[in-house]
Amino acid sequence: MGYSRSPGDVIEALKRGAITAAADSPLGAARDAAFVVLAVPPSATLELIERAPAWLAPGAILSDVASIKAPVMERARAAGLAARFAGAHPLAGTHGTGFAAARPDLFRGAVVYVCSTGTPEGDTVARDVASFWELVGESSPVTIDATAHDVQLAWTSHLPQAVASALAVSLSARALGGVSFGPGGRDTTRLAASDPDLWAEIFLANAGPVAEALAQTGAAMQQLRALIAARDAAGLKAFLAQGTAFRKGLDR
Amino acid sequence: MGYSRSPGDVIEALKRGAITAAADSPLGAARDAAFVVLAVPPSATLELIERAPAWLAPGAILSDVASIKAPVMERARAAGLAARFAGAHPLAGTHGTGFAAARPDLFRGAVVYVCSTGTPEGDTVARDVASFWELVGESSPVTIDATAHDVQLAWTSHLPQAVASALAVSLSARALGGVSFGPGGRDTTRLAASDPDLWAEIFLANAGPVAEALAQTGAAMQQLRALIAARDAAGLKAFLAQGTAFRKGLDR
Repeated sequence: MGYSRSPGDVIEALKRGAITAAADSPLGAARDAAFVVLAVPPSATLELIERAPAWLAPGAILSDVASIKAPVMERARAAGLAARFAGAHPLAGTHGTGFAAARPDLFRGAVVYVCSTGTPEGDTVARDVASFWELVGESSPVTIDATAHDVQLAWTSHLPQAVASALAVSLSARALGGVSFGPGGRDTTRLAASDPDLWAEIFLANAGPVAEALAQTGAAMQQLRALIAARDAAGLKAFLAQGTAFRKGLDR
Repeated sequence: MGYSRSPGDVIEALKRGAITAAADSPLGAARDAAFVVLAVPPSATLELIERAPAWLAPGAILSDVASIKAPVMERARAAGLAARFAGAHPLAGTHGTGFAAARPDLFRGAVVYVCSTGTPEGDTVARDVASFWELVGESSPVTIDATAHDVQLAWTSHLPQAVASALAVSLSARALGGVSFGPGGRDTTRLAASDPDLWAEIFLANAGPVAEALAQTGAAMQQLRALIAARDAAGLKAFLAQGTAFRKGLDR
């Protein structure tokens, strides 16, 4: 059972067998469900959680997939859902949105972060949510504290998005739209094609850690520029080699 | 006929039929060739061009694939090769090096920049080199002024490499080696895995334009950080939307 504000996506999801029934409204999709996953931007996630006590079926459990977790967990506790909610965040997806960006193997092998509300019942729900993700994606759920998650993701996900966007903005300001980019320039800017409204929400919901991470990368860029300006070949090689070692380490 | 300083690469290239004969030295590979393509880092390219009058067969023509073109064209003219050299730069390849990174379709459809030494004979050689790339890659040769090429590539190629490296260095400094990165973080940092020695040479050979481009991206990152710190949702969305429009434009 699914709902999307885009009717075209609902029709496509039905046709392809991703859902077996379409609802007329978000509540219509969720009302009789034993397990509800909210897959909407952060502000809509918070809003739907706040109203969930009014629509969530008795005994049903609720989860989400938002890229920030501390505000989500706080909202769930405030809404009295400590025993019925666990947050999740699958590290998957692309810059694409809607059903067109869906793939059968989207979650295969993905790391999925799971946050408990901290109560014994919440811990049980978190285990159920982890089992769901193991089933959906043969994926690897990792239990994590919500605040630790947000600081970590500021660096591993929100920062790369911010850097890709800033790079694209500076290329756009240089009026380079008509010229050719090789595979490197394309990959490095790919995230800039992501939904601006979604990412504005994520950056604001995780503003402190994201701003700090951006400052650190800005400092590294300053350092690189100084090495180039000083024609410091040895320093430059050492700087680049640090990045090479780090990036190769991700694939090990 | 090919040569590599890595014997393993030569054996693999022979086995796979990419070359039909192996030479014992760079000169052994080039001595009897009618057309020689230097595919080595910038400083080695410059050195081999300088010595080419001593080893290039009578009537043979010479080209290269370096990511910087102004110093290469200057060196070719200084070596007395204005009538026998044309520079080239295919926009292809990955962070990988050696025969293991070779693919039959590596150059298919790639844009290839071609630079003439500016003499009538040089223009003829440039047309020959363009035909070679059309044949090799069904690719699209574009004739370009060497200095214009270097300024453009500072933005479209050298800047993304510099940004990816700086991002990887800041992630490395944060000691995030053990944590999980999603597809976005992986793509944005992919170029950081490139050969540090090669890229140190490219940055130094194109230092002025690269430093200027880095400064502009640094300013965009500062602007993004200020919007986040000010919790300016409208400004943030407008900033990100500019990047989205630019990046989607690359795929049109």
